[in-house]
Amino acid sequence: MSTRDISEDRKKVVVIGGGFAGLNFVKHLDSEHFDVTLIDKNNYHSFPPLFYQVASSGLDPASICFPLRRELRKRHNTRVNFNMGEVESIDTSARIVHTPLDDIPYDILVVAAGTTNNFFNMNYLAKSVYTIKSTSEALRCRNDILALLERAAIAPTSAERRKLLNFVVIGGGPTGVEIAGAIGEMKRYVLPREYPTISQDELTITIVEGSDRLLRTMSEDASKSALESLKSLLVNVKLGVNMKEYSPENSCVTLADDSKLDASMVIWTAGVTATPFAWDDGKGESDKDTPAFIGHGGRLKTDASCQVEGLPDVYALGDIAIMTGDPDFPMGHPQLAQVALQQGKRLALNLTARERGKESKVKPFRYNDKGSMATVGRNRAVVDLKHLHFHGFSAWLVWMFIHLISILGMRNKITVLINWIWAYFNYSTSLRLLIHPSRYPLSDDLRFFTESTEDKKE
Amino acid sequence: MSTRDISEDRKKVVVIGGGFAGLNFVKHLDSEHFDVTLIDKNNYHSFPPLFYQVASSGLDPASICFPLRRELRKRHNTRVNFNMGEVESIDTSARIVHTPLDDIPYDILVVAAGTTNNFFNMNYLAKSVYTIKSTSEALRCRNDILALLERAAIAPTSAERRKLLNFVVIGGGPTGVEIAGAIGEMKRYVLPREYPTISQDELTITIVEGSDRLLRTMSEDASKSALESLKSLLVNVKLGVNMKEYSPENSCVTLADDSKLDASMVIWTAGVTATPFAWDDGKGESDKDTPAFIGHGGRLKTDASCQVEGLPDVYALGDIAIMTGDPDFPMGHPQLAQVALQQGKRLALNLTARERGKESKVKPFRYNDKGSMATVGRNRAVVDLKHLHFHGFSAWLVWMFIHLISILGMRNKITVLINWIWAYFNYSTSLRLLIHPSRYPLSDDLRFFTESTEDKKE
Repeated sequence: MSTRDISEDRKKVVVIGGGFAGLNFVKHLDSEHFDVTLIDKNNYHSFPPLFYQVASSGLDPASICFPLRRELRKRHNTRVNFNMGEVESIDTSARIVHTPLDDIPYDILVVAAGTTNNFFNMNYLAKSVYTIKSTSEALRCRNDILALLERAAIAPTSAERRKLLNFVVIGGGPTGVEIAGAIGEMKRYVLPREYPTISQDELTITIVEGSDRLLRTMSEDASKSALESLKSLLVNVKLGVNMKEYSPENSCVTLADDSKLDASMVIWTAGVTATPFAWDDGKGESDKDTPAFIGHGGRLKTDASCQVEGLPDVYALGDIAIMTGDPDFPMGHPQLAQVALQQGKRLALNLTARERGKESKVKPFRYNDKGSMATVGRNRAVVDLKHLHFHGFSAWLVWMFIHLISILGMRNKITVLINWIWAYFNYSTSLRLLIHPSRYPLSDDLRFFTESTEDKKE
Repeated sequence: MSTRDISEDRKKVVVIGGGFAGLNFVKHLDSEHFDVTLIDKNNYHSFPPLFYQVASSGLDPASICFPLRRELRKRHNTRVNFNMGEVESIDTSARIVHTPLDDIPYDILVVAAGTTNNFFNMNYLAKSVYTIKSTSEALRCRNDILALLERAAIAPTSAERRKLLNFVVIGGGPTGVEIAGAIGEMKRYVLPREYPTISQDELTITIVEGSDRLLRTMSEDASKSALESLKSLLVNVKLGVNMKEYSPENSCVTLADDSKLDASMVIWTAGVTATPFAWDDGKGESDKDTPAFIGHGGRLKTDASCQVEGLPDVYALGDIAIMTGDPDFPMGHPQLAQVALQQGKRLALNLTARERGKESKVKPFRYNDKGSMATVGRNRAVVDLKHLHFHGFSAWLVWMFIHLISILGMRNKITVLINWIWAYFNYSTSLRLLIHPSRYPLSDDLRFFTESTEDKKE
């Protein structure tokens, strides 16, 4: 166990995940009454709604990431411990969280570790498709889009260039629509100016969505507007058909109707699943059976107080949780930042109230739906509020404003704003940089920290 | 050969390297008379004087890198082709430059590929020490400094924390002094605030320099001031002794006097050597013998017109060149940005004049020494001008101003300035981010582009 400044009379709260839910929980907890340790596999909080802009060279990773230690330093009323590590297992009987380098005891556990990519029954995709569920994944995607463009720029024939520049986006949700639109903007505005040896029609973008419309969780109006915007950005849209198979050797995607698509790069945005942990209840065998509290999509079933079913003092927040106790959302809440933020705050207030002996202030969670939005290229966005849907330039201004105020850190707000203003006037963010950190030296000791999760599973 | 828009009556100029020398050459060449192709292994121009700030989390890589395609787009009088690739060999008989993916013919060749790390007779160091000769290497260094800090923060005993936090910098030139000073600032100002579980004296920084003073190419005054500044930043300075051996397994550096230093991280800034190429003169066997034009440190010997000895129409510029024709510098010029910039411009003007038939305007190169400078932490720098040496706050302002105006791109200037202002007031740049791009998916085809040089030599 590490050197933590823990006084014996305060409850030890351990939070797994420094995303929207976990960080907002820590911010609202009156930590006079608790010793808090935040565990995250990264040393930064990141802003997932803009991962696609990192992938498309619109923003730099540093603009949407914020060091957790700096953020935690601001909690003046107490010291929040930070522990960089990836949780391997949770022992609910001994009340210990295990990471590769540490064993962290808890009195109260808050699980807010979010989701990861879901490849459904095609796990081989993990090594062959691009994903943008983390800053690392987005950077990888950016580097390889740029590498493909550079290769195509020196390819001798049009056929070879075409072969290198077939981008296929699987999934027509907000992330899919946003990344397809961003690549469409590169095709329409960047290619003619910066890659003169590539002609515009040699680059194709196709978005594939299984349902009959894009952004199916949003309004019909939003779907229609997104479709029009993508078409104006020269993106091919295929609706009502799923991907059946991808063969990276042949650069070929096969759809459910057995039609084929050439694909030099497949960007997978089609599904998520809860970040998995090994749960140990001290009775043995638990690793083999799925615990009863694991629900649809691997999410942890909770009651309206965010407590995981059957696990006292264990709570789950945000995308990893599925709450069955909110009467307005009997099937669980949508996996959105707003839900995570609101749950984090509610749980913090509840735990604080209970610790202060003010049981009357403990309230069940109710989601206040503030609406949802997505953007499709410059100048265009779609916004769904409770009683109002709108799109176009005004929606885009709203989108920009909401995202800017939500990003952590004044320096980040300023650099994001500068980048967006720059891009608005010249479509050129000077961020098309193919930078890869050197791999040497690499001691095994540090491998854990310096490579992202999937690398270690090599 | 790739699709380049080449008209038969113009000479084909191929430039290897988009650094200070190569880019300034392209900028000043009247390309009405030439078809220019710029080859670089990266798709960006970078700013080496600030690599150490990337390594120490002071600046983001994107702030000191600028996409070459954007910069080349600005040359309105012509189209400069860009070819991202790493030169493997140069056939001076057939006049062809070979990269892994392309063969590029030339009439005139300009070699401006700079230098790389020199480990002298200790090549095993390439895989065990950290270097900061490129953006990739600097990022690697940053990631692992942060990883060591995070590991130490959860280490249970002081002995273990000390073992993780011994930083040794080899080489007391500007880069060594600057990185040692930057880590010193982290020790003095960042550690107490953001890593409360680590006490300040558990982190040590030692700089080792073989000669009897730091910054030995600068004035005595600069050396003295750098020494004082480093000491105030809690850096141990060892002068007059070289490193003899480094054993990463034992985390131990052995110096020439057989004394030992614990070292969890060794940062090597002790020497450079010219970027090597395979030269083929068409007579065979050439790969085995060192060509006569290779001089001290692998540099290419040139006359005062920058032409490589014995190779008509082949020129060398900047750090990779050693010119014996400048009477003020019979041993060759110092390897500084100013020399590279001035040589690039001179050669461009000369080639243009000759092509226009104005032989009278062709002039030999003469270096105009504008002075040199280095910085040691916030508020402190040393500046040597021809007739004036100064240091301290005023030198630091001069240092900042000169570097700011030298960085390519207005967006970069602004973001660097914002970061410096931020850092000035709170020592906290919010850039202590340990971000590593995901390694999957990785097709062999793209490996060339997406991993840095040394990785491929694995």
